[in-house]
Amino acid sequence: MKLLALDSSGLVASVAVVEDDCLLAEFTVNYKKTHSQTLVPMMEEVRKMLELDLASLDAIAVASGPGSFTGLRIGSATAKGLGLALKKPLVEVPTLEGLAYNLYGTDKLVCPLMDARRGQVYTGIYEFIKEGAGWRMETVEGQCAVELSVILKKVNALGREVVFLGDGVPVYRSRIEMETEVPYGFAPAGRNRQTAASVAALGCVYYAQGKTVPAARHQPIYLRLSQAERERAEKEAKP
Amino acid sequence: MKLLALDSSGLVASVAVVEDDCLLAEFTVNYKKTHSQTLVPMMEEVRKMLELDLASLDAIAVASGPGSFTGLRIGSATAKGLGLALKKPLVEVPTLEGLAYNLYGTDKLVCPLMDARRGQVYTGIYEFIKEGAGWRMETVEGQCAVELSVILKKVNALGREVVFLGDGVPVYRSRIEMETEVPYGFAPAGRNRQTAASVAALGCVYYAQGKTVPAARHQPIYLRLSQAERERAEKEAKP
Repeated sequence: MKLLALDSSGLVASVAVVEDDCLLAEFTVNYKKTHSQTLVPMMEEVRKMLELDLASLDAIAVASGPGSFTGLRIGSATAKGLGLALKKPLVEVPTLEGLAYNLYGTDKLVCPLMDARRGQVYTGIYEFIKEGAGWRMETVEGQCAVELSVILKKVNALGREVVFLGDGVPVYRSRIEMETEVPYGFAPAGRNRQTAASVAALGCVYYAQGKTVPAARHQPIYLRLSQAERERAEKEAKP
Repeated sequence: MKLLALDSSGLVASVAVVEDDCLLAEFTVNYKKTHSQTLVPMMEEVRKMLELDLASLDAIAVASGPGSFTGLRIGSATAKGLGLALKKPLVEVPTLEGLAYNLYGTDKLVCPLMDARRGQVYTGIYEFIKEGAGWRMETVEGQCAVELSVILKKVNALGREVVFLGDGVPVYRSRIEMETEVPYGFAPAGRNRQTAASVAALGCVYYAQGKTVPAARHQPIYLRLSQAERERAEKEAKP
């Protein structure tokens, strides 16, 4: 089973190829360049390094949102284009699930936090349940766009140690430290942002469960209205 | 604090750049190509993507062994060359410590296993101790070249759940499953091989502790004699 995975849902652009239990390649860049400039050239570098025949892929996994609207569209458009051209299905990996999967196997709760601007975070709560010689990720609180205090109250109510990660951490660190009432920690560099390796690993799980979509049917999950849609709705609501 | 990290100690070639708590880029390839063909071109791709001025680095971290003799020499030679040219110190990250650091923050023991051929594994045992909002990795059993059963007996004697990772896992999986008497698990794709992101993250810890060496003084840790040295010693020992 061979999977190409893409994540451009946030500031990070990331490409990975996984075959069975093995990461064949990952290229991740967290830099101010636009994903439209980086994602496809990075994919091409990976393809060259692996001498990869794209036709040998079983599916294309993509971080399917929420996240940056432009970023999601670049990732989805790339994945759709590949899926249509190669006649391969897509595996949609919700962004927060992919991010939480960075901490695969932890005994703590995992609370990914992406800065969603306008006072909100994209977040969720996840845990890992031992299953054979591996772990299965379970959703404790599904991904949502809420104010930070809403999710921290839920974390506190669960009463278990938690690890926070994501680009929301540096933005809200002092508030997290003040409002979290359970023991907590932060993920380290290299595990605290989106990575296509996690999208690929979780994508393999979903692929094995038959959770694929035809490329033509894929759509990113925005969770909120875009700025343009919001502004139009506000304008239309005015008397 | 900005660090470039290299790992070519095994089948994987990996390059990463970390700045403070943030992974700026990682490029990892696990493919049959020789590291001498891949490592420097991958580094150059990362440099271009980040528009990175190498003079802005504080140090170069390298997976310092044990591992493939040729692989280690390619990584060390590259790191030394960069360090000498840029007048930057090197941070030596023992290979097994870098590999164990993939599972940063786990409550289980970590037992990396690299296939060392000739019936041995390069291995060690590590654990993570909570410290503030992070974790400190402690060495339970320092890295060594031993037969698999030697390290599994030590794991069993510790009586705690353990996670195995590394290229020794697929080679010895059935023996691990038979001989391990404590609960155990295996790391997932994307966390089960060397990655320069972990070398970089642990390299940052060592750099902050002042554990650097001048580039000219760096040498890889082989732990065993090379095949050529061994054969000469055997020949000389013959009557």
